[in-house]
Amino acid sequence: MLYFASDNTSGIHPEIFAAIDRANRGSVKAYGEDPYTESATAALRTTFGGRAEVYFTFGGTGANVIAIASMARSFEAVFCAECSHLWSDECAAPEKFFGGKLVPVPAVDGKINPAVVAATMGENRGVHHAAPKVISITQPTEWGTIYRPAEIQALADYAHTHGLLLHVDGARLANAAAALDSSLAAISSDVGVDVLSFGGTKNGLMGGEAVVFINPDLARHTDYLRKQATQLASKMRFIAVQFEALLHDELWRRNADHANAMAARLAAAVSDIDGVEMTCPVEINALFPRLAPSYIAPLQQQCVFYLWDADASIARWMTSFDTTAADVDTFATLIRKVAGRHG
Amino acid sequence: MLYFASDNTSGIHPEIFAAIDRANRGSVKAYGEDPYTESATAALRTTFGGRAEVYFTFGGTGANVIAIASMARSFEAVFCAECSHLWSDECAAPEKFFGGKLVPVPAVDGKINPAVVAATMGENRGVHHAAPKVISITQPTEWGTIYRPAEIQALADYAHTHGLLLHVDGARLANAAAALDSSLAAISSDVGVDVLSFGGTKNGLMGGEAVVFINPDLARHTDYLRKQATQLASKMRFIAVQFEALLHDELWRRNADHANAMAARLAAAVSDIDGVEMTCPVEINALFPRLAPSYIAPLQQQCVFYLWDADASIARWMTSFDTTAADVDTFATLIRKVAGRHG
Amino acid sequence: MLYFASDNTSGIHPEIFAAIDRANRGSVKAYGEDPYTESATAALRTTFGGRAEVYFTFGGTGANVIAIASMARSFEAVFCAECSHLWSDECAAPEKFFGGKLVPVPAVDGKINPAVVAATMGENRGVHHAAPKVISITQPTEWGTIYRPAEIQALADYAHTHGLLLHVDGARLANAAAALDSSLAAISSDVGVDVLSFGGTKNGLMGGEAVVFINPDLARHTDYLRKQATQLASKMRFIAVQFEALLHDELWRRNADHANAMAARLAAAVSDIDGVEMTCPVEINALFPRLAPSYIAPLQQQCVFYLWDADASIARWMTSFDTTAADVDTFATLIRKVAGRHG
Amino acid sequence: MLYFASDNTSGIHPEIFAAIDRANRGSVKAYGEDPYTESATAALRTTFGGRAEVYFTFGGTGANVIAIASMARSFEAVFCAECSHLWSDECAAPEKFFGGKLVPVPAVDGKINPAVVAATMGENRGVHHAAPKVISITQPTEWGTIYRPAEIQALADYAHTHGLLLHVDGARLANAAAALDSSLAAISSDVGVDVLSFGGTKNGLMGGEAVVFINPDLARHTDYLRKQATQLASKMRFIAVQFEALLHDELWRRNADHANAMAARLAAAVSDIDGVEMTCPVEINALFPRLAPSYIAPLQQQCVFYLWDADASIARWMTSFDTTAADVDTFATLIRKVAGRHG
Repeated sequence: MLYFASDNTSGIHPEIFAAIDRANRGSVKAYGEDPYTESATAALRTTFGGRAEVYFTFGGTGANVIAIASMARSFEAVFCAECSHLWSDECAAPEKFFGGKLVPVPAVDGKINPAVVAATMGENRGVHHAAPKVISITQPTEWGTIYRPAEIQALADYAHTHGLLLHVDGARLANAAAALDSSLAAISSDVGVDVLSFGGTKNGLMGGEAVVFINPDLARHTDYLRKQATQLASKMRFIAVQFEALLHDELWRRNADHANAMAARLAAAVSDIDGVEMTCPVEINALFPRLAPSYIAPLQQQCVFYLWDADASIARWMTSFDTTAADVDTFATLIRKVAGRHG
Repeated sequence: MLYFASDNTSGIHPEIFAAIDRANRGSVKAYGEDPYTESATAALRTTFGGRAEVYFTFGGTGANVIAIASMARSFEAVFCAECSHLWSDECAAPEKFFGGKLVPVPAVDGKINPAVVAATMGENRGVHHAAPKVISITQPTEWGTIYRPAEIQALADYAHTHGLLLHVDGARLANAAAALDSSLAAISSDVGVDVLSFGGTKNGLMGGEAVVFINPDLARHTDYLRKQATQLASKMRFIAVQFEALLHDELWRRNADHANAMAARLAAAVSDIDGVEMTCPVEINALFPRLAPSYIAPLQQQCVFYLWDADASIARWMTSFDTTAADVDTFATLIRKVAGRHG
Repeated sequence: MLYFASDNTSGIHPEIFAAIDRANRGSVKAYGEDPYTESATAALRTTFGGRAEVYFTFGGTGANVIAIASMARSFEAVFCAECSHLWSDECAAPEKFFGGKLVPVPAVDGKINPAVVAATMGENRGVHHAAPKVISITQPTEWGTIYRPAEIQALADYAHTHGLLLHVDGARLANAAAALDSSLAAISSDVGVDVLSFGGTKNGLMGGEAVVFINPDLARHTDYLRKQATQLASKMRFIAVQFEALLHDELWRRNADHANAMAARLAAAVSDIDGVEMTCPVEINALFPRLAPSYIAPLQQQCVFYLWDADASIARWMTSFDTTAADVDTFATLIRKVAGRHG
Repeated sequence: MLYFASDNTSGIHPEIFAAIDRANRGSVKAYGEDPYTESATAALRTTFGGRAEVYFTFGGTGANVIAIASMARSFEAVFCAECSHLWSDECAAPEKFFGGKLVPVPAVDGKINPAVVAATMGENRGVHHAAPKVISITQPTEWGTIYRPAEIQALADYAHTHGLLLHVDGARLANAAAALDSSLAAISSDVGVDVLSFGGTKNGLMGGEAVVFINPDLARHTDYLRKQATQLASKMRFIAVQFEALLHDELWRRNADHANAMAARLAAAVSDIDGVEMTCPVEINALFPRLAPSYIAPLQQQCVFYLWDADASIARWMTSFDTTAADVDTFATLIRKVAGRHG
């Protein structure tokens, strides 16, 4: 069976696994008061700016929930793309925990901008609506597209001018930075982002995310919020050490570059096949092909992938750090064969 | 000063006031265990069907919150018009109390229908999204338009076919029934509505709303939910007796007919004025005129009303049970004068 | 039937009713932007101190919920007597809305003090417990006893020394001030209280409570929290004007003095009856007699009252502004007769 | 440095680590649709009864929160020992997520029983209190003591007779079963427990807990609640496989037996030292010695442990699967030395 479903169907990268093994020596204090957490935090500070506050979490929804709850109160509103994970895929976890309102913003290729946020926000109506407080974007987007640094800066400027904060859901931030050949900071701390959910699980970790408060003033209550949100790990060293390994020698970039390259290879390999048409630019490790409907069933018999929009016959194919060129070529051959038979 | 801001700028209708006075005799048990509550509940059962369960509340947001929390759990979703009070005007009170997700649905003239609900809902993605559970419509809508009985039935049928429930926010239900010359049941219990927020405050009450569970099975926990939502009145007789008076001799219809007629009178009186153009059919006691921008300031110097959409220069003018023909004529004359001077 | 169940089984005091009638003239802006609200707020500021911020609510649980949510975040804890309304009688409304922890404190005759709060609080354990933030006391207590000003000051001093805030649930504050022959301020603003839930409904109002932020800095978000808690009245003038009438010519004291006197009269009248033994000092309008179990059924056939602790055979008898001396004497005679027959 | 602070200061047991390594092969579906999760679930069903439903979570607070939210609604109450982790150590996470009330019950040596639950519960007061719904006990308790099967059965019988449910927080259930030389089922599914939080992290896992619905009817919404509570792992195979290894060849018992034995060894070694007095029976891997205050500082210079009750000078010493006899003997020698010097 081939797997092009998601980068979280992959296992653990060998360097990450080795790091867990190394950390598995003797006893250390629990709940993050250990040298591994200290060291990983320092590495993230080096990456994102010396004042950053870092909170490790188990998962990505947990990271987002803690980030949002640190920025907004229950009577406030968070604006995010209608296709964002925050709005569409978290089963109301953010609303439940922070108690306030998510507001979906129309997006193009997954992206939003100050004008569409402003139009969605409308006028200030005091207590009769939830007070706007946060803009949250996903980088890269759920459609595999990338915000350029200037686009993020524009959103940050708009936010800060209007008394709002900017959050980035960076579950795959590494893939964006790799694609842009930039540093991680160049698309976060350098361009006005206040709080970042920095993903690890989708890029080779066994499991772990980090909430990075580039603006540390916003983290005043985050330690309590993380505990209350059930995201405080007792054996935190094993999350922390994975992040240290991810940053070491830019493993994050190596993994992301590879996954991105595999997606590009797949895009190239299928570009001339009838009935396979990309609906978005392929910028990271995700492809969103519109498929001839007759292809879908035969393809899914031999490859695990999601139908992203069944009505529109759009699939999502995703590569990962451990996708091989052979996997891609096998899949491309399969697609070509299916197209020949069912086209 | 003229008041065309809202029907809640009015005071108490004399028949309602007299009813409060009558109920102010001696002691009765608190929290609804009194004969006034029993009698008003019976009257509402007669109106909406004998099996209905009735819960009085202080206010309209409270009524909606209790209705929603009785129908949906925290991991479920409620679909409502993007212009609905529930989505736009309640400061995330529903999200906070029921803990789940409101999902805004694009509306035309304030109205939604099964097709647009279905399109918004998309596919079932299990735990990765909040599970669809309730469709909530406002009757009449926030744009002063009315769902016809068949339209409500169609939404109810769609809901029940798909395992969903239908809620109606009827803060001004009386105005809709009056405009349609129908009974209250004809646009609620008779056409598949499960739960109704039935408004009183905007139709001459001092204050009070009723949540009517046409489907009484849904009210299994509502007594607790009302208490927990801080909407259980200790001296409940004074809310209940207002509803009894509202239903007596169809005071609700007399008040609503009058308010509707005053809106029609105003619409007619300004229909030929340049720079005053209705953006929606005037079906109840609300008008949504697009005004020449230069009219707004001078008009607001002598009349209290809201700008509904400042960017589009759309105002809302609302009449009430106590709006007089003279008020309307004075306002129309003022508008004509302002149009002459600033047109 | 006699009513000694609660002061909320009474109706509306004539001066309050007259005030509602007076306010029922023409249109005013909704949601508190009206002259009645302005004037009542000013009267409360005169009463409780010029910097106080005032928020009217529909009910007492609503008032407490808004007060607590203005003072404490979801990861914080509120310490209150184990017999307090907040802990025992509000169906988890405070926990639900503010999202944090109530912690019950052992009480004697309904009262708590710094030592027992400190013992309950224990040590600071950081994120592993909800951070202590508020002490909430009830004045008078649920057992009809009164905190003396020095006792409140001691709790306020303890609170402020330890970074905590002091809330008073004053649903019957008037009865305490009347009993102490003090001003309302003497047991609230003058002795370090930060936020007060000031009750009206139990002292002759049709319905209405006021949250008084003696420390106005704590009210920064209260307008939003009130709306989100479903406690913002549209026709607020009718709540506000009741409070103005309550403060006018100290109606609150006249009503409370009368209710207190009726309780004292009842206590005196039954003091020599076998099988009727007061379990608490009778300081306000409530009596907590331990009754010979055989008395209870025959008494409840002719008088409505609660069994406060069925196992201990303790009843609560409560008087009100409209309890008459004749009511008391009739009840006392009944008790004597029952005691003679069943003793 | 010696570590007797907690069993979560330990690392990963070699058999657990090997299992993670084995599961790190190729791609599998995310979110629990993988063969490892299926197999671990089957193993837990074999352990706890064939109808059990199993939900893996990241952490223990997450497990408890999901268990409680599956059993109780926001207007309901959960009764738990005043010293329980649920009440004392979870930063109001349960209250926040399920929205209702925890009620602390006085405990002796950490244990509660039907009589004290009944006394705490008091009478049914309808909507004026949170409706009793769940009894939650910790097995073993926070004071290292064990409920015998008959004691659990008595609580279950009481619960079920009164329409309540019984939850067991079994973060260290293995230590209890090992100490009793019983199966895991003998202290859970066999004696009326409805829902169990079954811990792994404290018994040698890298991280992971399992919520076991012995009564599967209660799990109707748990998949959604787990997602909404941010406890759904994407790479779930790595949690599941740890549990499979823990159950394999009763590793749980081997680890727990060892930890328990080390605690007994320590208890024996210090039993004759002046100023070291056990305050609870040593039944599992925890000791709660009252220490001469002068011992504490010098001991903590060489050993990490908690002061459990600083005022009473009571410490907690905890052993783990990887505590060695040499560790124990070194610590005992240190204690004896300190006692000699500071006694």
